[in-house]
Amino acid sequence: MSDRALASPWRCSQWFNVAGEAPTLQHLRGKVIVLHAFQMLCPACVAHGVPLAEQIHRTADAKDLAVVGLHTVFEHHAAMTPVALEAYLHEYRITHPVGVDVHAPGQAIPATMAAYAMRGTPTLLVIDRAGRIRQHLFGPVDALALGMLLGGLMAESGEAST
Amino acid sequence: MSDRALASPWRCSQWFNVAGEAPTLQHLRGKVIVLHAFQMLCPACVAHGVPLAEQIHRTADAKDLAVVGLHTVFEHHAAMTPVALEAYLHEYRITHPVGVDVHAPGQAIPATMAAYAMRGTPTLLVIDRAGRIRQHLFGPVDALALGMLLGGLMAESGEAST
Amino acid sequence: MSDRALASPWRCSQWFNVAGEAPTLQHLRGKVIVLHAFQMLCPACVAHGVPLAEQIHRTADAKDLAVVGLHTVFEHHAAMTPVALEAYLHEYRITHPVGVDVHAPGQAIPATMAAYAMRGTPTLLVIDRAGRIRQHLFGPVDALALGMLLGGLMAESGEAST
Amino acid sequence: MSDRALASPWRCSQWFNVAGEAPTLQHLRGKVIVLHAFQMLCPACVAHGVPLAEQIHRTADAKDLAVVGLHTVFEHHAAMTPVALEAYLHEYRITHPVGVDVHAPGQAIPATMAAYAMRGTPTLLVIDRAGRIRQHLFGPVDALALGMLLGGLMAESGEAST
Repeated sequence: MSDRALASPWRCSQWFNVAGEAPTLQHLRGKVIVLHAFQMLCPACVAHGVPLAEQIHRTADAKDLAVVGLHTVFEHHAAMTPVALEAYLHEYRITHPVGVDVHAPGQAIPATMAAYAMRGTPTLLVIDRAGRIRQHLFGPVDALALGMLLGGLMAESGEAST
Repeated sequence: MSDRALASPWRCSQWFNVAGEAPTLQHLRGKVIVLHAFQMLCPACVAHGVPLAEQIHRTADAKDLAVVGLHTVFEHHAAMTPVALEAYLHEYRITHPVGVDVHAPGQAIPATMAAYAMRGTPTLLVIDRAGRIRQHLFGPVDALALGMLLGGLMAESGEAST
Repeated sequence: MSDRALASPWRCSQWFNVAGEAPTLQHLRGKVIVLHAFQMLCPACVAHGVPLAEQIHRTADAKDLAVVGLHTVFEHHAAMTPVALEAYLHEYRITHPVGVDVHAPGQAIPATMAAYAMRGTPTLLVIDRAGRIRQHLFGPVDALALGMLLGGLMAESGEAST
Repeated sequence: MSDRALASPWRCSQWFNVAGEAPTLQHLRGKVIVLHAFQMLCPACVAHGVPLAEQIHRTADAKDLAVVGLHTVFEHHAAMTPVALEAYLHEYRITHPVGVDVHAPGQAIPATMAAYAMRGTPTLLVIDRAGRIRQHLFGPVDALALGMLLGGLMAESGEAST
């Protein structure tokens, strides 16, 4: 499995639903990670993507899997501010950690979104226990198929996929 | 039908999806009016209320019925600004007129919401051709039952209900 | 409105959810009638058509509107027998009257279905207070638009449309 | 895992969607098995249970997982005959194997349903590669959680769970 790309770190300016230290790739090494990129005014994210990310967070055992939300604003920047995001997360009862993807000066596309070459929102990435990207999905995600993938990856030992 | 309350005018600081003059009760007199109060970060509004209002707007004949959206922000004021509302309406392809309910200084509840004694969002009001309130619904609305009511009111002459 | 076709009588071999006399066009004259043709093993009927017919039955005032279900079996005759239909109606909690469309000897298409030139199931017909067909829909039906039509027709006097 | 019950063989009088030999526990040993019990006139089965079973059948790799449908008729016996079941499977485009659970003379509850002590329909059982029951669900099933379970079980070797 040496041909699977190693996930790059995400870079966030601010976090919500995080009590202590912000989650990093390094801290989460050893767990399966679901990295979910969304925008709070993207209809498909609100209707499907974010609820599915939240459902994974509530369903899977936290010692085996971590869900990380990423607010990757690439349009309507004045509308989707951190203040607005906070209200959104509150109203929609979202409890998983959500970071605000940083913008390099003058760039519409935020840094992590660019580093992962995401095509838009919602995007869902699955990273295995060894830190390698195993799935990169843009658009609608089938819950059953994703569940099967996650169940299989959780059954792997961290070393197995290096 | 003299016991039905006459609708009060709405007061808006700004309008979206309006080309010329802002819609007023007076201008719309003679038509059935659906007045739909919502907040752009209220989950039930986004999932059900606003789409239904838009569907009425697209289904009914504009010479018989008018849909007026009202952004009645009573919480998360810093998040649900007119700039954010504009982005929301664009992303969700909302085409019916939407006004921003005005706030009196120091009041969390906006003016029109207070005048109509609305309990929250989404709220849907139906006003007949003669300007009288015939329905005031808070929460989920059944499309079939609402359609029957609107069909009946559109069949009334404007004078019939005074 | 003299160009609207007068509805023909339906012909049924058996009725369910009828206590006394079977409903006929003549008995229902003066009411708006929703005639709903379905098959109990037609997926779109089970998922959408029959539940909508039942919802109309439960929503509208029985003195103004009558819903008549019609089991128009044109395929899988050995599967969709009256005994099977009865079990279906029981399991799905259908309470509106349902008649079994009669078959002329050797005909796959039952008699009423043929007389109305229905294209398949589900088919929904709306008949006004004067007995004239005002709507003939094959396939998916929008509840809001149908509600508007029914509300308007219920507002007509029986004489108006003759 | 010695405390997990070994699955008992199912007993069917007839099969649909099976080209050659009928599927047995023995033949499928080594695969994860989803055994789905339903009735063709049970609303929750038609709306949720059977479509989910079919989705699993179409999603999972056939060399790792097998879906077996079981028509466990315990009411309305005259309505839910094999002829009616065949029409149902055809109309709903169900492609996974479905067996008709046998009835002992005079028993309303069919034999396999009784042997597994199923409480009703829909019931979903998950059997691991070693033939042991790992999940027994009555009623609604969450696709994500089920997917995680199945993904984990498919990652097990057949010997691991004996």
